[in-house]
Amino acid sequence: MAGRNPAITVTPSTVSSSYLTGLIGAGIGPSLSPALHEREADRHGLRLLYRTIDIDELALPATAVGELLRSARTLGFDGLNITHPCKQLVIEHLDELAPEAAEIGAVNTVVLRAGRAIGHNTDGSGFAQSFARGLPDVPTGSVLQLGAGGAGAAVAHALLTVGADRLVLVDADQTRAAALATALHRTFGPGRASTAPLPDLAAQLARADGLVHATPTGMAGHPGLPFPAELLHPRLWVAEVVYRPLETELLRTARALGCRTLDGGGMAVFQAADAFRLFTGCEPHIDRMLDDLADLVGSPTR
Amino acid sequence: MAGRNPAITVTPSTVSSSYLTGLIGAGIGPSLSPALHEREADRHGLRLLYRTIDIDELALPATAVGELLRSARTLGFDGLNITHPCKQLVIEHLDELAPEAAEIGAVNTVVLRAGRAIGHNTDGSGFAQSFARGLPDVPTGSVLQLGAGGAGAAVAHALLTVGADRLVLVDADQTRAAALATALHRTFGPGRASTAPLPDLAAQLARADGLVHATPTGMAGHPGLPFPAELLHPRLWVAEVVYRPLETELLRTARALGCRTLDGGGMAVFQAADAFRLFTGCEPHIDRMLDDLADLVGSPTR
Repeated sequence: MAGRNPAITVTPSTVSSSYLTGLIGAGIGPSLSPALHEREADRHGLRLLYRTIDIDELALPATAVGELLRSARTLGFDGLNITHPCKQLVIEHLDELAPEAAEIGAVNTVVLRAGRAIGHNTDGSGFAQSFARGLPDVPTGSVLQLGAGGAGAAVAHALLTVGADRLVLVDADQTRAAALATALHRTFGPGRASTAPLPDLAAQLARADGLVHATPTGMAGHPGLPFPAELLHPRLWVAEVVYRPLETELLRTARALGCRTLDGGGMAVFQAADAFRLFTGCEPHIDRMLDDLADLVGSPTR
Repeated sequence: MAGRNPAITVTPSTVSSSYLTGLIGAGIGPSLSPALHEREADRHGLRLLYRTIDIDELALPATAVGELLRSARTLGFDGLNITHPCKQLVIEHLDELAPEAAEIGAVNTVVLRAGRAIGHNTDGSGFAQSFARGLPDVPTGSVLQLGAGGAGAAVAHALLTVGADRLVLVDADQTRAAALATALHRTFGPGRASTAPLPDLAAQLARADGLVHATPTGMAGHPGLPFPAELLHPRLWVAEVVYRPLETELLRTARALGCRTLDGGGMAVFQAADAFRLFTGCEPHIDRMLDDLADLVGSPTR
C-alpha cells in the first residue's frame, strides 16, 4: 500500500506539518486574522488553525498576556499575533526581539519555535509594503502623521524606513507624540521626526505632501472625520490605517477632492502575510490575500 | 462576488467550524491519535488540529493535568483526550461526568463546550464495538481478563455491558483486581465479577471461554508473552488490548494454536472514533479509520 511504513510511530512530517496560531488582545472577536491566515494556509495545503484569545471575553487584564503566552507555549502553539493592549506588555515575556520590533518598541507577532519565543513587528513592514504598492511615486519630503499610538509607532517607523524626509507627528496627547519622536531619533538620527500641537494641524496640512491617518476615527465604532474636511487639499496624498470599513469618511472626502489615497486594507493584509511567513516559512500569495480581505469586509481593495 | 457579505465581521460559521483538540498524557509523542483524528476530519472537510501535550516532555507531574486543562479551556480547545497517568486525576477538574465515565472511574475524553468541561470514557465503548465487530458470536459465559489497570477497568465494564456472564479478574496486584471487582459489583450487581490470584491462572484459563489481555506485555517496549504459551488452548478466544504492534506475540501464538483472536486495533480506532464524534458532532467513517490505523502501524487490521 502506498505510504505504508513499517515503523510503528507516525512519521515526523505528519506531526510537524500543522500550525497552531492565534491572536491575543481585547475585543478581537470580529478579527479578520483567522480567516486571512486560514484561507492562505488552505492554498498552501497546510493544516493551520488560528484562534482568537480575547482578554475581554476571558475577563483578564492586559497583563495576563505573559501567562497566556506561557500557556500557549506549553500547549504547543507555533505562533501568536498580539494586539491592543498587549503589544508592549508582551515584550518582557519573550526570549528574543527582532531588530524592528525593538526599535518600534512593540510586538505584534511572536514565533514559538524550539523552546524560544521571538518577538517581531509586522505592522511597520506591513504598512511599508502597502505604501510602496499603493502610492509608489508620491512625494515624501514632508509627511504629517496624525496619531502616535500603537499603530502610529509602527507606521512612523515604516515611513522613515521607506524614505520620508521629514515626519511631523500630531496627537491629541502631545507627550505621546514627543515620546515617539524621541524614539525615532534614536533609530533614524535627529531631525527627521518632529511634533506639532493639534491646533497647528491646519498649517501643517497646508504645507505637507502627504497625510497618514493613524487614529481610530473612521472605524465602525468611531465614525466621522478626524478633523474638518476643509483642511484637506488636492495636492495631499492620504494614507489610512483604519481598514474597517475600507472606505472611511476621510478617504471618501479626500477622493472626492481629487487626493490620491491608500486604504488600510493593504497594511492589514501585508502585516498578516508577514506573520504567516514567520509562522509557516511559506511565501504568502499577497494578491489572493487582498482578494480575501475585500471579500471579508465587503468592498474591493484593488 | 459570491460569498460577499456587507457585514464587516467574519460570519459565525467561519469562526466555529474549526476544532482544536489534543491528548494529555505521558510518553505520548508517538501516539497515533493525531493522525487518526486529523485524517478523519479531512474526510469531513473539517479544519481540525490534534496536538500531543506530553507531561514527560514538559517535565510536569501527572497532577499538572488540572492546570493543563485550565490552560486549554482558556486558549480555546474544543476537546481533549486524556491518557495514562491522568485518566483518574482529571476527574476533579471537570464540571460534569458522563455515566459510563463515572462507572469506570476514569476519563479518556473531555469535551469543552459552552464554558463547561464534560468527561467521557470511550475506551469502554471502543472495546465493546470492536468486540462486537470482531468476535460477534463467541461464547461469553466465562471470560478471564488479565490486567485490572486503567485500560482494564474500561474493558471489564464493556465486557459486562455487552453481556459476559462472569468475569474473572487476574492481576499481579491483587488489591487492584479486588478494587475493580468491587466497582463492577456496584454497577452490574454482585456475582458477575470475581478475582483470582495469579498462580491460579492456568486453572482459570483451562475453564474460560475467552481471554482478554489488558496488560502492557507485548507492546513494543515490553515484548514477549504475558504467561507461558502452554496455558493457551484452541477453545479459547483471545482479545488483545495492545495495538502496537497489532500482532503481539500473544495473538501470534494463539492464532497458531487455532484460537479466534481480536487485535487491539479495533479498540484503538473505535475509542478515537467515539471521541471524534463527541468533539465534532460528525459521524466518523469507521472503515476508513481502520484502514488508517493499519496504514499507520504498518499491518492490516482487517
